[in-house]
Amino acid sequence: MMLSKNSIKAINSLRVKKTRNAEGVFIAEGERLVEEILNSKLQVKSIYKTSILNITSKEFDFELVEITDDEMKKISSLSSHSNVLALVKIPEYDISKIDLHNSLVLALDGVQDPGNLGTIIRLASWFGIDTILCTNDTTDAYSPKVIQSCMGAISMVNVIYCNLPEILKEYRTKNNLPIYGAFLEGEDIYNSKLNSKGIVVMGNEGNGISPEIEKLITQKIHIPSFATNRTAVESLNVAMATAIACSEFKRRI
Amino acid sequence: MMLSKNSIKAINSLRVKKTRNAEGVFIAEGERLVEEILNSKLQVKSIYKTSILNITSKEFDFELVEITDDEMKKISSLSSHSNVLALVKIPEYDISKIDLHNSLVLALDGVQDPGNLGTIIRLASWFGIDTILCTNDTTDAYSPKVIQSCMGAISMVNVIYCNLPEILKEYRTKNNLPIYGAFLEGEDIYNSKLNSKGIVVMGNEGNGISPEIEKLITQKIHIPSFATNRTAVESLNVAMATAIACSEFKRRI
Repeated sequence: MMLSKNSIKAINSLRVKKTRNAEGVFIAEGERLVEEILNSKLQVKSIYKTSILNITSKEFDFELVEITDDEMKKISSLSSHSNVLALVKIPEYDISKIDLHNSLVLALDGVQDPGNLGTIIRLASWFGIDTILCTNDTTDAYSPKVIQSCMGAISMVNVIYCNLPEILKEYRTKNNLPIYGAFLEGEDIYNSKLNSKGIVVMGNEGNGISPEIEKLITQKIHIPSFATNRTAVESLNVAMATAIACSEFKRRI
Repeated sequence: MMLSKNSIKAINSLRVKKTRNAEGVFIAEGERLVEEILNSKLQVKSIYKTSILNITSKEFDFELVEITDDEMKKISSLSSHSNVLALVKIPEYDISKIDLHNSLVLALDGVQDPGNLGTIIRLASWFGIDTILCTNDTTDAYSPKVIQSCMGAISMVNVIYCNLPEILKEYRTKNNLPIYGAFLEGEDIYNSKLNSKGIVVMGNEGNGISPEIEKLITQKIHIPSFATNRTAVESLNVAMATAIACSEFKRRI
């Protein structure tokens, strides 16, 4: 089969967030990633594959299109294209039906770098954190860069864009669980009492947690540096801080 | 002053490891990074700056060259160039004079991704780890990508390329300190006895620690996943594993 110019254009337009949201579809590339998605709760709409790859669609309910290597090059967002590209339905979450009260939940307040977001989704999966709440100005989890960098973890973690201040306010009315946030003036995380249930908010790379959300934090924590002199970097990258925070929370359970 | 074509070519050639090593010089760009390097033990050879930036070389012993914005564009390795580019001497370490026996030391066995190496150097600085030993097949710490991603930490941490198996053998003859390595079959790091002195080896992204170095490990450790079902990513990225390991080692001291 030959891919029409319109099809190529339509697939490439999914690199833009606005189009992804309008179509409700994102792109995933590479054998391993597509296989993980096929085995997950995510719903695949179409798979474009070159003849090298051996997949049959009999058992699945998606469109399977065999294309040439040259055609793959035209639709791939990767610098070196693979043998398979899938169009996957962006999951829709009804946040009122997600239980935030019985486990540890991550929340991201304006994380901007796709690589950081991808790493954080992967960390959540590693640490058994099922849900990440994101402010609407957090970088889009369904961009090709995040999808490729989180190595399939997007199919294992609920990444939910929401009005985070509203959700946190409601959370506080419904229970007494802590809402943690990382601040320079916070308590040393290594010596803090940490709960196995609650929300941990991580802030924007440059500005940290916004004032509106800071007001809703119930426990400020801080990851201290162990450098013995002033010759230390000034801050931890947000993905590294998330790794260390998740490790501290989870090891104590 | 006008930059000659030869100067532009010479600076650009420093993007290649072979030339950097032959010249003993690496490139650092951006006001903040260059300022950190100027305040460190590293030796700056030349600074190229546009007229916007206010630096005078009176107090320093390097060459200061004022160039145009167009010229900066021609020598910059960044997608958006800054106002300043420095040529800095690659530090030479005499490993026989570095004390490996009185603190925690990191060792990298073939880490390939420049972003991971930059993150690891930054983590070392944060956790007060002064020295990183690298196998010679570890990606070059002085490449523009690593230098820009480690945010000045290159001036705070000794990154030493060496014959790592030889160094580890010698280390074992000189003391009884542990050499740790991350392995799937290792002890749960959260429940292991960890020493405040020793060497922690982190392996290659795909293959982990090489068999030759595995033989020299005295304590195998493992960072366990906290996912409650099979729906977890299969492995932690090496930079994230380093963050978690450093946090575990250092919090106990």
